Amino acid sequence: MDKIIEPRSLAGTMELIPADQIVFDRIKSVIENTYKKYGFLPLDTPSIELSQVLLAKAGGETEKQIYRFNKGDSDICLRFDLTVPLAKYVSARVNELTFPFKRYQIGKSYRGERPQRGRYREFYQCDIDIIGKDSLSLSNDAEVLCVIYDIYRQLDFGKITIMLNNRKIVTGFLEALNLKDKATEILRLVDKFDKIGEASLVECLAKEVGLDKKTIDIVMKFLKIAGTNSQKIAELKKFKVDNETFKLGVSELETVVNLVRSAGVPEEYFSVNFALMRGLDYYTGTVFETVLDNARDIGSVGGGGRYDNLAGYYTKQNLPGVGVSIGLSRLFFALQEKGLISKQKLSISKALIIPMEERFNDNALMIASLLRANNINVQTFFEDTKFKNKIAYADKLNIPFIIIIGEDEVKAGKFTLKNLESREQATISAGDIVNILRKN
Amino acid sequence: MDKIIEPRSLAGTMELIPADQIVFDRIKSVIENTYKKYGFLPLDTPSIELSQVLLAKAGGETEKQIYRFNKGDSDICLRFDLTVPLAKYVSARVNELTFPFKRYQIGKSYRGERPQRGRYREFYQCDIDIIGKDSLSLSNDAEVLCVIYDIYRQLDFGKITIMLNNRKIVTGFLEALNLKDKATEILRLVDKFDKIGEASLVECLAKEVGLDKKTIDIVMKFLKIAGTNSQKIAELKKFKVDNETFKLGVSELETVVNLVRSAGVPEEYFSVNFALMRGLDYYTGTVFETVLDNARDIGSVGGGGRYDNLAGYYTKQNLPGVGVSIGLSRLFFALQEKGLISKQKLSISKALIIPMEERFNDNALMIASLLRANNINVQTFFEDTKFKNKIAYADKLNIPFIIIIGEDEVKAGKFTLKNLESREQATISAGDIVNILRKN
Repeated sequence: MDKIIEPRSLAGTMELIPADQIVFDRIKSVIENTYKKYGFLPLDTPSIELSQVLLAKAGGETEKQIYRFNKGDSDICLRFDLTVPLAKYVSARVNELTFPFKRYQIGKSYRGERPQRGRYREFYQCDIDIIGKDSLSLSNDAEVLCVIYDIYRQLDFGKITIMLNNRKIVTGFLEALNLKDKATEILRLVDKFDKIGEASLVECLAKEVGLDKKTIDIVMKFLKIAGTNSQKIAELKKFKVDNETFKLGVSELETVVNLVRSAGVPEEYFSVNFALMRGLDYYTGTVFETVLDNARDIGSVGGGGRYDNLAGYYTKQNLPGVGVSIGLSRLFFALQEKGLISKQKLSISKALIIPMEERFNDNALMIASLLRANNINVQTFFEDTKFKNKIAYADKLNIPFIIIIGEDEVKAGKFTLKNLESREQATISAGDIVNILRKN
Repeated sequence: MDKIIEPRSLAGTMELIPADQIVFDRIKSVIENTYKKYGFLPLDTPSIELSQVLLAKAGGETEKQIYRFNKGDSDICLRFDLTVPLAKYVSARVNELTFPFKRYQIGKSYRGERPQRGRYREFYQCDIDIIGKDSLSLSNDAEVLCVIYDIYRQLDFGKITIMLNNRKIVTGFLEALNLKDKATEILRLVDKFDKIGEASLVECLAKEVGLDKKTIDIVMKFLKIAGTNSQKIAELKKFKVDNETFKLGVSELETVVNLVRSAGVPEEYFSVNFALMRGLDYYTGTVFETVLDNARDIGSVGGGGRYDNLAGYYTKQNLPGVGVSIGLSRLFFALQEKGLISKQKLSISKALIIPMEERFNDNALMIASLLRANNINVQTFFEDTKFKNKIAYADKLNIPFIIIIGEDEVKAGKFTLKNLESREQATISAGDIVNILRKN
């Protein structure tokens, strides 16, 4: 007898039971189909890349987390996101691709983090990006917000709020206050505003950054602008900040808000938020994050924004873009924790075909072929066991119907169709079964 | 200016242009939907596994090709197939899963081979398996053959032939000839019969294995049995081999052939072939491989078979099964090489929406939302460029329709829909556009 090895998985990887995998795949497929509905092209770059290429820009925390190894002459990494591979892909094909290049990619990325609840070493990301050559219309920023709204409209996690800002506004605002040198420090603190609260922020701005009371008052007044989206923008204009970056940011934000309205996204689904920063060294214009109103504490369930240049480390071609990323593995984990994952019984198959004796297995295969030819998912149960075990099988897999084939059915050239929920049953022709199952 | 790094990919990885990716995804989705049509449940195990677990059974050539590395305290491997992860998954959940457990998995596996044309280091496999607890009905073997037929019926690569055998037949045959000790050696040669031809095989059986002429004659007579499927089985029975394994094999093969017929697979799509071996140390009953009649030289495009025990190295529970694997990356490469990949122009979007001026971008987003709400994939073109460039964009992406929004259209509350192939165009209402695009 060979030694038995315990069949365990690596910590920090997600491996679902089939019932949960069906739900996971349903969410993934809503995301994918919505991306396609907006004309994003599919892309599937390798998970393994040359370290020299993948780490062109990386550094710090990210680089420490990377899975990297040598095989033969190759120094290889597992990708840690889908953005750097996109940058590589587009740079290598600048003359081949059609711009604006719109692509989606849904795939796994890898980070060798210390595993903790809800943090994965292997995780799905669902990304879209629209990449322009030299320029890209601001209207695209509005459209990617519509994508997020559309996805969560189809899923059943309740209402969302897309928080929306433009990085130029705060950048210009600080420039006008002559705080350009301290901008990074200030923005890092402002980004935590929602978490740490007003009192802490004021204290930090004074003690850590050394701002005077008057400046802090102005900054706090700016951050606390309230009201409807239109009111917030109107309030902002009242600051009369004399800075071109600021003015451009306000104008861009206003344009995006108006376009999102035109596209039919209801006003209560997006909210201008001047304290939203997101990714200090990457985004340069529109930025956004999405929260589930029922579960704001799980954090952003879809964020992104506008960047000036996708791939400066791979090409001299300027490639501005706007994108969205949904961290699906983390989202699924959080939804499960919150009990927001539908308890609805999902089944891959519409019916379980049960031959009462082995000699009817050929009849089972025949009706199965007929139903499948009509695009009805069905499953056969061929094992020699008690009838109640066959029913139990259908029950456990949430299969809604069974089709019984016994002596009487075969003699009559019919089949007994039973609805396992209503307990109704009838002995009918194959054609009738097709009709009923197509409707149910 | 930062240093520019060449944006290249690791050799032996597949990275397609969007037009090819659309075709690749279409094949993948036919395979996935067909797997579901037969009631296989989705499974998505991690690509990274603990080496100690994943390599429980591996050895030899496979182990040399494995991507293996350490990170922190973990000794990690990239999976090299989807079967060992399945064995791990099932063994760990023997008391949780519902048996027979039917699962499909479509995912990437990794082997650090020397890259050569058509050989990938990262490649997609599309697997199904049906796993029984202690026993599994032979009828399942017939059903997985139907799955292969069904998949290739939907794809447009021409007629296929599923070559079919039962390993017990040759095993019993050699036992009856008192050649059990030499069985492995003989089978390895027989497996090459199709490639090396009769003369070479006879020579090898004599020189390498040391068989006498009389024995070789019997073996060759066995291997060369010809005729229809029924004739071959009838001929085989005439050998009157007095061996239980042989008799069981013949009976199993006959049962599977009859069931495949009952399921409606046309006779010319499957062919009994007593020389087919496939995987010497794994399969124990039914074995099969599929070839495209137009391109037999690309090898098997879907093979598998019956095994006695999935996971002896992980659990004492006996887990017999039957499965199919389609090597999608290799298949796609081979089909491209043969020119068998459809040159049909596929597009993700049905229409490109073109506002003639920036001020009509909001109208574009409005009609886009309306069409998408009707599940029509459409794309917007917001960039400020000449009209001919906008048309060229639709052309390059094979988008069949454009929707033009100009001054006249906005005033009239209508849109101009143009079919880029027929050049027909009409200025019509949004509702009419929905109707036309839903039909096309």
